[in-house]
Amino acid sequence: MRLLLINANTSTAMTDKVVAAARLLAPDCMVEGVTGRFGAEVIASRSAYAIAAHAALDAHAEHGAGHDAIVLACFGDPGILALKELAGVPVVGMAEAGCHFAAQLVQRFGIVTGGERWRPMLTEYVASLGLGERLAGVRTLQADGGRIAADPDAAQAAVLDAARLSITEDGAELVILGGAGMVGMVERVASHLPVPVIDGLMPAVAFAVAAARAGLRKAEVGSLALPPAVASTGLSPALAALLAQRGRVS
Amino acid sequence: MRLLLINANTSTAMTDKVVAAARLLAPDCMVEGVTGRFGAEVIASRSAYAIAAHAALDAHAEHGAGHDAIVLACFGDPGILALKELAGVPVVGMAEAGCHFAAQLVQRFGIVTGGERWRPMLTEYVASLGLGERLAGVRTLQADGGRIAADPDAAQAAVLDAARLSITEDGAELVILGGAGMVGMVERVASHLPVPVIDGLMPAVAFAVAAARAGLRKAEVGSLALPPAVASTGLSPALAALLAQRGRVS
Amino acid sequence: MRLLLINANTSTAMTDKVVAAARLLAPDCMVEGVTGRFGAEVIASRSAYAIAAHAALDAHAEHGAGHDAIVLACFGDPGILALKELAGVPVVGMAEAGCHFAAQLVQRFGIVTGGERWRPMLTEYVASLGLGERLAGVRTLQADGGRIAADPDAAQAAVLDAARLSITEDGAELVILGGAGMVGMVERVASHLPVPVIDGLMPAVAFAVAAARAGLRKAEVGSLALPPAVASTGLSPALAALLAQRGRVS
Amino acid sequence: MRLLLINANTSTAMTDKVVAAARLLAPDCMVEGVTGRFGAEVIASRSAYAIAAHAALDAHAEHGAGHDAIVLACFGDPGILALKELAGVPVVGMAEAGCHFAAQLVQRFGIVTGGERWRPMLTEYVASLGLGERLAGVRTLQADGGRIAADPDAAQAAVLDAARLSITEDGAELVILGGAGMVGMVERVASHLPVPVIDGLMPAVAFAVAAARAGLRKAEVGSLALPPAVASTGLSPALAALLAQRGRVS
Amino acid sequence: MRLLLINANTSTAMTDKVVAAARLLAPDCMVEGVTGRFGAEVIASRSAYAIAAHAALDAHAEHGAGHDAIVLACFGDPGILALKELAGVPVVGMAEAGCHFAAQLVQRFGIVTGGERWRPMLTEYVASLGLGERLAGVRTLQADGGRIAADPDAAQAAVLDAARLSITEDGAELVILGGAGMVGMVERVASHLPVPVIDGLMPAVAFAVAAARAGLRKAEVGSLALPPAVASTGLSPALAALLAQRGRVS
Amino acid sequence: MRLLLINANTSTAMTDKVVAAARLLAPDCMVEGVTGRFGAEVIASRSAYAIAAHAALDAHAEHGAGHDAIVLACFGDPGILALKELAGVPVVGMAEAGCHFAAQLVQRFGIVTGGERWRPMLTEYVASLGLGERLAGVRTLQADGGRIAADPDAAQAAVLDAARLSITEDGAELVILGGAGMVGMVERVASHLPVPVIDGLMPAVAFAVAAARAGLRKAEVGSLALPPAVASTGLSPALAALLAQRGRVS
Repeated sequence: MRLLLINANTSTAMTDKVVAAARLLAPDCMVEGVTGRFGAEVIASRSAYAIAAHAALDAHAEHGAGHDAIVLACFGDPGILALKELAGVPVVGMAEAGCHFAAQLVQRFGIVTGGERWRPMLTEYVASLGLGERLAGVRTLQADGGRIAADPDAAQAAVLDAARLSITEDGAELVILGGAGMVGMVERVASHLPVPVIDGLMPAVAFAVAAARAGLRKAEVGSLALPPAVASTGLSPALAALLAQRGRVS
Repeated sequence: MRLLLINANTSTAMTDKVVAAARLLAPDCMVEGVTGRFGAEVIASRSAYAIAAHAALDAHAEHGAGHDAIVLACFGDPGILALKELAGVPVVGMAEAGCHFAAQLVQRFGIVTGGERWRPMLTEYVASLGLGERLAGVRTLQADGGRIAADPDAAQAAVLDAARLSITEDGAELVILGGAGMVGMVERVASHLPVPVIDGLMPAVAFAVAAARAGLRKAEVGSLALPPAVASTGLSPALAALLAQRGRVS
Repeated sequence: MRLLLINANTSTAMTDKVVAAARLLAPDCMVEGVTGRFGAEVIASRSAYAIAAHAALDAHAEHGAGHDAIVLACFGDPGILALKELAGVPVVGMAEAGCHFAAQLVQRFGIVTGGERWRPMLTEYVASLGLGERLAGVRTLQADGGRIAADPDAAQAAVLDAARLSITEDGAELVILGGAGMVGMVERVASHLPVPVIDGLMPAVAFAVAAARAGLRKAEVGSLALPPAVASTGLSPALAALLAQRGRVS
Repeated sequence: MRLLLINANTSTAMTDKVVAAARLLAPDCMVEGVTGRFGAEVIASRSAYAIAAHAALDAHAEHGAGHDAIVLACFGDPGILALKELAGVPVVGMAEAGCHFAAQLVQRFGIVTGGERWRPMLTEYVASLGLGERLAGVRTLQADGGRIAADPDAAQAAVLDAARLSITEDGAELVILGGAGMVGMVERVASHLPVPVIDGLMPAVAFAVAAARAGLRKAEVGSLALPPAVASTGLSPALAALLAQRGRVS
Repeated sequence: MRLLLINANTSTAMTDKVVAAARLLAPDCMVEGVTGRFGAEVIASRSAYAIAAHAALDAHAEHGAGHDAIVLACFGDPGILALKELAGVPVVGMAEAGCHFAAQLVQRFGIVTGGERWRPMLTEYVASLGLGERLAGVRTLQADGGRIAADPDAAQAAVLDAARLSITEDGAELVILGGAGMVGMVERVASHLPVPVIDGLMPAVAFAVAAARAGLRKAEVGSLALPPAVASTGLSPALAALLAQRGRVS
Repeated sequence: MRLLLINANTSTAMTDKVVAAARLLAPDCMVEGVTGRFGAEVIASRSAYAIAAHAALDAHAEHGAGHDAIVLACFGDPGILALKELAGVPVVGMAEAGCHFAAQLVQRFGIVTGGERWRPMLTEYVASLGLGERLAGVRTLQADGGRIAADPDAAQAAVLDAARLSITEDGAELVILGGAGMVGMVERVASHLPVPVIDGLMPAVAFAVAAARAGLRKAEVGSLALPPAVASTGLSPALAALLAQRGRVS
């Protein structure tokens, strides 16, 4: 089975880190990673997020062929519905996977992530999933995901503090450490906290593998079916070709 | 890894069928099944559902020890929150697993199941998960899960009809075939439908395996932590002992 | 008119107390009480609650015949929808009655009850009634309902403190003292609080009497109509007979 | 015990009819009625409804003193929150009482009433109570409440048709016949319908009697406490006096 | 273009102030004002609000003819839906206009106004608009709108304090200064606050002018179409005539 | 006053059309238009929408300086929150403006637009605004916005049919003709329909002018304040510079 991880951040170091972690999680799979060609190094604003959605589609158009499932390896899931629309195979985001996984373990979960603008962004996103009532709250660190990944030792104490507030103040019964930059942090903090702790990658990989294994077909109808063909301008040839195809199954 | 499947229906034929299917889904796991000691043969009413919740706890008390995760193998998930409260390992229901899995694949999913009382029951249950807006609708067959399992050839046409109505009338972009009795039906109908089709067992097993593998701890705080010890009357010795223990970790 | 009070706790002392209080509230009625045959002495967990739902059905099957209305005399209303489904006469729970009564008196009400697990349990239950927006919050005492009933003098100060916090912190405009154990506590605390105070029994009895007097028929259609007959195993003969009957009107 | 029925319609015939019915429902109470001094003869529009809220306050100011509870005997409950704010005793509206009563009997109820503008008005009102999810739908007759009351023989068939559609099309498990004009219609149609049927007066009277009997205090804090005194112009002396009083307890 | 401002408070000083401000906002329009004939001098309770709805209709009946749009110049919008129903031209309330305007500028807005009962009243009203999730909170001053208007120097500090709490505690990204009494206060406080500040009049006038300019027709169907004619008692001749007309287009 | 219209479609013909219409609506303003540099010619899919969000930011970075307000002239508002975050002046989308304007005129509005994928996309978007309960429904034409604009004569009948269904089937009390391609269609169909009809441009321009005139400051705090500076790759120099600036006020 072949999994593609799309990192919509433009940091290849982050991609490498997430790919390595995913390979440990799915040792039987061939896991490849691709980094966004353009956009912010680290996504921590609405603007960077909007650009990343395009970058994710661009990366998928270039590299998506031949994979059995796709993980959008950027917590917050920029462009996720567009990717699901275009792709012929299952696509899952780390944030949605984390939230749906958490919702099967506990009644209310908290999220800890880096970059303060993520607080409203994730609150809005989780509500759009229908899980707003299940979200205890979002706690953000000042350091964004890039800095956390670069120096996890320095970030660890702040992550623990935020997780504890999520539990005691917000009522979280499980904490999701959000963001590609948090991969590996679970092992550092889980034993210090009285509730389960997960990141987004583990459930995303588990979902992708299960969905790919099930051999699910692409929906031919509904809001995520392939859209009508459309002409375009100024896009990469691969993405333009994807938009121009009708009825394609990747 | 050891998985326990709890069938809260009292039909051992159903248990055998579900266990066999789960073993195919998780060939690396040791899968055991247990059938409710008391209650309705097939659950298709609020009354039978309420009794089944007790039966699921009873079965867990007797057989739960030594497993790494538990699947409540009865679509509708009777007693699911009580099981999560008592158990020291991850517990997942087929209905919640099916809905959360579906919600990662499409925007709106439909459910087809046997027994007409399940329509309001599942609508209420999915709403309690927070996924009411994601549910296109529930379509029920007159035959309940027992009859579907006993004669899948006879049920196949009715399942297809209901699934098609779910898609065309309700706007389902994916159809969940709900109920232990539906296990095996996906293969019969999926190729005839224009959207993906899943049952509840596949995602429940995938979740249980992933959660067990992650080695998540039992929450010590929150609404699913072990409750205070309480004395009881008239229960099985195993269940009475479970209620009387404080701070137990199974 | 004959009222049946079903106490799904297994403490007969609690049943006696509630029956005595109900007789004062409805002096014209013949009020009988029945105690759960099995389950926790005091319900203060999800597990005990799930078992109590079965116990309530069991009690109804044995004792329900010949009554004009049924009060489920256990705040939190375990098994309430299943009871309404099976019973041929009106059934009301103390929690739902308390909440609907309160919602006709004020815009937002608070609940004070014993046993901390009730906080999430009641919050979820009130939301399922549709009254989540009307609930200011749930405040719990460490002592559960059994201890409160056993020593109301000791509990009184804690009840007052919790009620005051409900008013000043949560914005409650009325306080419901939840739980069979709280019966009789209203008289002790009401004069010390600046808002109305009720328990669940008073409105439950008032509703039951009014519904019985109105001579309402059992619905023949809809989600609470009698369910199809089903075979069962391991239940009391009376409950098994109830499940096996089709179209019965008690 | 003394009950005051405020009919915010300006038809005294309607008041007489409702008072007579209330006396049958509460034979132990002294029941008095008062008719709005100004406004539409029959309320079936947003404009007439807004005026009726003032008329209800005006009637209460003139006649409210000395009663133990007040029933706003106009389905739709114009001015209900203002009345609750000003009055020192419990106040209940026929629509809220009907909806909360119904919500204790079934999962989803329908409303049948006269005058087509009531469909959006009641849908909005029931949502404001928090019971929007419990409402199957509102079905209106072309004839408004005045015409129904004037010639119930003529209206009976239309009421039955609307109630049947409420059950079969909307999924109502109980039908509320809304409006003072419908008082007496329950007896005509109930035996022809497969679900329970109620009007708004029965539950309103039951609630008012229970609330009065409980001797509940007026809230001193919260959104329905007496408001600060205010000077006014052009109102009836009694209403002006009521607005000008601070801390009054009727 | 002719705009009518209806002040449902009975203070002509307030009307004059609002009219003067509106003329500055819409220098090309002929702006007239009318004051409620009856009711509270300043609206700060549910009772005064209910009366004001009638007063607004009364004022419209007398003075509405010949205008191209109507602004209900009383924050909280008493009678707004009834006015929209009766009027043949666009009608807008200062509160709804403020909230919809704010919702186009930011994700979450706060409201600061005078008179503490407005907190629940506005919270309920904004929820009825559908914007409850967009409302960060309502902060009230002890001084009501009349006192603020009479001595804005004295009120300024309290307004600033409340606005700051709205931003820092409630998370408001914009503050609406609610109430006719607040007109002119924006200029005093805006430069001291880190978010945009608006009153309700500016957006109400902008909307009214735009709607009038667009030459929109009165809806002939739906919940705000002219209602059926109805006879009435005790109303002003103009309002009685309006209610008695069928199919009128003003 | 200077307004910038950003057309995130890549069709300059559409931009010209919208700019011309906006100049008629705001004759006192200097109105400029800019067309997306890349992306689909006509946006009618989730993929094209995601790309357009980036294109809108790109256009703003290049051309946004020196304007007093910005209209995102593409119904559906791709990138709207990111634009609001980056821009120093008010930004409004045609869809949000249309919906908020409609919500001030009627209780429930419908949308008619071209391209069937817009039905789920707009339903989701309007829900995210908080106006989901106010939306009667979305009706789509097979022809997308480009074809409607190219041959309005051919589209007119289909628009009328869809609008009528929106009114009679969905209960719309006002119809919004969505999409830049619909500009000019209001005049063609309004007189044939029994409810008001608007497009998105009129309210968007009215809002932009009013917001600009009010001289509102950019929020320094909250979820739409300028984000922290971030390094980027592969973006236009202007957009990269915008992302790299901290505390910029345009």
